[in-house]
Amino acid sequence: MTYLDHAATTPMLPEAVEAMTAELGRLGNPSSLHAVGRRARRAVEESREIIAEAFDARPSEVVFTGGGTEADNLAVKGVHWARRAADPARTRVLVGAVEHHAVLDAARWLGDHEGARVEWIPVDERGRVDPDTLRAMIGAGDDVSLITVMWANNEVGTVQPVAELAAVAREHGIPFHTDAVQAAGQLPVAFAGSGAHALTLSAHKLGGPIGAGVLLLAKGTDPVPVLHGGGQERDVRSGTLATPAIVGMAAAVQVAVARRDEEARRLTALRDSLISRVRAAVPDAVLNGDPVHRLPGNAHLSFPGCEGDALLMLLDARGIECSTGSACSAGVSQPSHVLLAMGAGPERARGSLRFTLGHTSTEADVTALAEAIGPVVERARRAGLS
Amino acid sequence: MTYLDHAATTPMLPEAVEAMTAELGRLGNPSSLHAVGRRARRAVEESREIIAEAFDARPSEVVFTGGGTEADNLAVKGVHWARRAADPARTRVLVGAVEHHAVLDAARWLGDHEGARVEWIPVDERGRVDPDTLRAMIGAGDDVSLITVMWANNEVGTVQPVAELAAVAREHGIPFHTDAVQAAGQLPVAFAGSGAHALTLSAHKLGGPIGAGVLLLAKGTDPVPVLHGGGQERDVRSGTLATPAIVGMAAAVQVAVARRDEEARRLTALRDSLISRVRAAVPDAVLNGDPVHRLPGNAHLSFPGCEGDALLMLLDARGIECSTGSACSAGVSQPSHVLLAMGAGPERARGSLRFTLGHTSTEADVTALAEAIGPVVERARRAGLS
Repeated sequence: MTYLDHAATTPMLPEAVEAMTAELGRLGNPSSLHAVGRRARRAVEESREIIAEAFDARPSEVVFTGGGTEADNLAVKGVHWARRAADPARTRVLVGAVEHHAVLDAARWLGDHEGARVEWIPVDERGRVDPDTLRAMIGAGDDVSLITVMWANNEVGTVQPVAELAAVAREHGIPFHTDAVQAAGQLPVAFAGSGAHALTLSAHKLGGPIGAGVLLLAKGTDPVPVLHGGGQERDVRSGTLATPAIVGMAAAVQVAVARRDEEARRLTALRDSLISRVRAAVPDAVLNGDPVHRLPGNAHLSFPGCEGDALLMLLDARGIECSTGSACSAGVSQPSHVLLAMGAGPERARGSLRFTLGHTSTEADVTALAEAIGPVVERARRAGLS
Repeated sequence: MTYLDHAATTPMLPEAVEAMTAELGRLGNPSSLHAVGRRARRAVEESREIIAEAFDARPSEVVFTGGGTEADNLAVKGVHWARRAADPARTRVLVGAVEHHAVLDAARWLGDHEGARVEWIPVDERGRVDPDTLRAMIGAGDDVSLITVMWANNEVGTVQPVAELAAVAREHGIPFHTDAVQAAGQLPVAFAGSGAHALTLSAHKLGGPIGAGVLLLAKGTDPVPVLHGGGQERDVRSGTLATPAIVGMAAAVQVAVARRDEEARRLTALRDSLISRVRAAVPDAVLNGDPVHRLPGNAHLSFPGCEGDALLMLLDARGIECSTGSACSAGVSQPSHVLLAMGAGPERARGSLRFTLGHTSTEADVTALAEAIGPVVERARRAGLS
């Protein structure tokens, strides 16, 4: 099996499996006041410190959630609600055109349901947002509740100039959120250094368990909750803290961040090998995204004259696993909003595959793909013509 | 250690730990189309079938969430939004006065933020809602979006006449939600049989992991999502499905429901022994809640002249772990809204302890409590006087 879909989810790191498995055998609701509860609370707070340190944040800035999607919803809806409550004129939400659906659809819902005016921040043909474009969109800015632009794109791997964009937002006193789910573990993600007010993390993209996420929240950025209840996480996010998943996330973060620079170099070389070997096999394949400002593990290519879904199935039959874009949108036949926003036509958008590398990837995976892709593309093209 | 706080969280069943641990070592985003994704999807769908069958529901009625709090928020906010969108006159939300904070605070937020008119359904001195009271409150009913009354109370253990209340709601065509987090695993919880339109379950209250929950949704009950994104769970709840937690929940449900009747008899006897032995040691202790319509594992007692927090700490120092009420509100010094709604004064409400039994409880636990409670109450009373 050749797994080239690490952006959808990556195998748990052994250290994370071990930490989480041990915790599954322990008891305790971290909100309970007795000894068993206090033990669980300590495990949560130690995890909070590990995650804060790894991402240049303070422990008090870490809010645990059930995953990246929940953290994105809390940031987008919660910050908009809070800002609009403080100042009813703040009805505009500026959203990157290539955001993940968790941000995109949360913002759309604010538009459809809550009377927000959602405006899409355009990207260039490589998927980048230009800080000057953002500045021009903001205008006076006193009617904007939130700006949200992801750290790195989940489909094409383009890395945004987050610090520059956050600085533009700060010029106008507007909260800036960034979804760093794909960036964390691959790039140096420094919360304080970035200038962002809110930052989303997901455990299972960096070797932790599915079902754990974090929203980093700068002091003073107090979103209205999306989940109400017992008042856990300083009343920002209610729900029993999932100690095993949190401990598993912290173990994965610790390992992933310690190995990050070395692993980024290794994956970058592997990715470049993948791109050149695929293009050697399919000379008209086109690399999408930014060749320089790019996630180390991401290769996203268009294969003219092919349907991505057909390629995916043909590769899958040969034991090679990749995706046509976001796993969250898998099975949806619409062309990717990311590629469309980058100016690709629907045909090119539909004829694309995402190959993403991770901690278990080796040159053998690249070789397997390089050997399969030529015949597979040829077969898809013949089927398309017949 | 004597753990008498199973309502806060109960140890994971070995079968659930085993199933979940095995799944942590496997790979796959259930939304991915390739073989690895399809394997994960099958694990999720098998879990869905197990849970549906255990609770008299159809697999298509099971929506996985990150826990009970999220499921409650989805039911309360989502159903209200959907009904009000279909008919703007439906602005009233009728909420049981003794609900868990996940329901209570979600409803309050609808009142504060979304213009809903929240009305509290009163309970009698045992914590029960009278169906005729509900019928009278509803009136014509064409202005009500949702009625929500829990199956069994998390503090005092009172079991509601859910089927009768749901029938009253159905007379008026009003969606009925019930939080069955505490009931599931202890009582026969039949979704179709109850007549409810929406029902909340939590994994970690019945031997599964923290971080997994379910909202059962009858066909045609389509809440507006609380978490937007990739469109998982038929667009009702977005976020990568946490296969390990879901598999762990299904394993726990299967065991807990198979053993339910036998375990209910065992816990009822143990609970009655606990109540009588505590009252033998502290003759003026008062049992709160309903002596008949009561969760098998719940004993909730008031100790006149004592502060519950002080009793909790004194018992904890002797290795006996219980709570003053909901773990979610632990540390909050306000008297319980549940006891106040039942007509108890603030003093009695503050002087109460909840003892809850579960699958690891034995008569030895009861003995440990029975031996400690007399001296502890005496000491607390002396401290209160000094």
